[in-house]
Amino acid sequence: MTDRFDPKFTKHVLDTIGPKATPRNHQVLGALMQHVHDFAREVELTPEEWLMGVNFVNSIGQASTPIRNEGHRVSDVIGLESLVDEIAHKLVTDGTVDPTSSSILGPFWSPDAPFRPIGDSIITDPAPGGKPTLMHGKVTDLVTGKGIPGAVVDIWQASANGKYDFQDPENQSPNNLRGKFRCDENGDYHFYCLKPTAYSLPTDGPVGVLLNLLDRHPMRPAHIHLMITAPKYRGCTTQIYPNDDPYLETDTVFAVKDDLVVDFKPKTGDPKAILDLEYNVILAPESYKGITPHSQSTIGLKSKL
Amino acid sequence: MTDRFDPKFTKHVLDTIGPKATPRNHQVLGALMQHVHDFAREVELTPEEWLMGVNFVNSIGQASTPIRNEGHRVSDVIGLESLVDEIAHKLVTDGTVDPTSSSILGPFWSPDAPFRPIGDSIITDPAPGGKPTLMHGKVTDLVTGKGIPGAVVDIWQASANGKYDFQDPENQSPNNLRGKFRCDENGDYHFYCLKPTAYSLPTDGPVGVLLNLLDRHPMRPAHIHLMITAPKYRGCTTQIYPNDDPYLETDTVFAVKDDLVVDFKPKTGDPKAILDLEYNVILAPESYKGITPHSQSTIGLKSKL
Repeated sequence: MTDRFDPKFTKHVLDTIGPKATPRNHQVLGALMQHVHDFAREVELTPEEWLMGVNFVNSIGQASTPIRNEGHRVSDVIGLESLVDEIAHKLVTDGTVDPTSSSILGPFWSPDAPFRPIGDSIITDPAPGGKPTLMHGKVTDLVTGKGIPGAVVDIWQASANGKYDFQDPENQSPNNLRGKFRCDENGDYHFYCLKPTAYSLPTDGPVGVLLNLLDRHPMRPAHIHLMITAPKYRGCTTQIYPNDDPYLETDTVFAVKDDLVVDFKPKTGDPKAILDLEYNVILAPESYKGITPHSQSTIGLKSKL
Repeated sequence: MTDRFDPKFTKHVLDTIGPKATPRNHQVLGALMQHVHDFAREVELTPEEWLMGVNFVNSIGQASTPIRNEGHRVSDVIGLESLVDEIAHKLVTDGTVDPTSSSILGPFWSPDAPFRPIGDSIITDPAPGGKPTLMHGKVTDLVTGKGIPGAVVDIWQASANGKYDFQDPENQSPNNLRGKFRCDENGDYHFYCLKPTAYSLPTDGPVGVLLNLLDRHPMRPAHIHLMITAPKYRGCTTQIYPNDDPYLETDTVFAVKDDLVVDFKPKTGDPKAILDLEYNVILAPESYKGITPHSQSTIGLKSKL
């Protein structure tokens, strides 16, 4: 069918890229235009569909505010942020042990989360229906298998109502359900948090329109966010998910990976917790020579965006 | 290199499309997500580049207003509107004569342009530096080669300053340089217009950012817009371009086609014109069986967009 169309059209568009475009801009934007054209020819995009697309793109920015990033959300529900995370962080090892998988950062991390002492709780406000959990584990070195003393575990999560402190100032004080913990001399940590709760992305904007066209639900499985760092190690930003969550297979932002699914077990004899979660983290040393992402060695996209 | 990435990821994203998505939505949006993922893997899109893209998409809607459609412009400078136009209108004939090529409508057509008598001028306001032109020709039937009596030629163009009436209320009254002309019993028409003037797209928004990244100019070659219609014929929306324009090869919206480039010749002995332009149009009958676009026979994209 595509014989019907000018076979030189896309080449002509790409040939107009000027000599002062950086090599990376040329590569990235050229590939983007090639794929957009291939897409349009493949589905024989109609003028009406094109116009709907134009209106949809305009609606994304119009729905965004300083505290609502609809462009980020749209890229999430089409799987792009998770894919970019994999491209950037996937480390192929030559052994039988892999470092802990990364997952997307999401929009709710805070640089201001306080350090708390090992054993403390991040639950500073009431969370009706929440299930207090003792979370504990060890951060180890991929190569030696030994604990990493002083590794920092930064944790943040939504409350039992599915909202983060930012989104819920009436019920939550700043830094409720956030905290940084420094592992002991053996690389061990423990603290109290909540078993997390599934929640919906906001559906009153373009994301809702798109999910409706795709006949998809807007739910994220319940998750705890973690950012684990240590000097001379590759840090890991990730999320962990209870293994009994109904949305693991259909996470609307596609951020679940097998090794990030965890088991919350009943706990007795601890007045501060009804559940127990063991979660161990493996970090690769900075010097570790896996198969590193190609993109980290290429020229960065220079722009005025 | 792509072995490094989960080979099931994109299939998983596409498999979440629900059973109530229409077949066309499934096809179009599925192909779009496949191409976005292939693009990201192909260039190993970095998190920084992804974030720049998110910000760029948000900026498009934020720069748009009721009289400025930046999403439309961005799709134009990547060649998408021209490609969609070709997909919708390209008719492959089985003879040696083709119908007049279509080109993009653009944002300046008006449904309110008045009918004017054959031989009238569309120049109702002064246009300093403009070159008055007698434009004339015949609208003929692709199959019979005969003139089409009563065919309507709707013409609109920017003034010598590169602005349309909408954009230039201080210098131009409504419908300056617009008009509809009904061909005579032989399919012939003639009227007075201006030799058109090249102009720049607005560059103070996302389009300017994108063109800068691509090291491209923002110029459209000079052009006259035409919409030619007749009962029982496939109408033709198109643009024609003077053959001496410096931007023919690099039109920033890629709307130039070979058969749309025309020759303005010097004219003497006419007090109303210094140039002469002959332009003939060929329309295909509605019943003509060329190779028609596949998309016209498929289910339309249903949506709430």
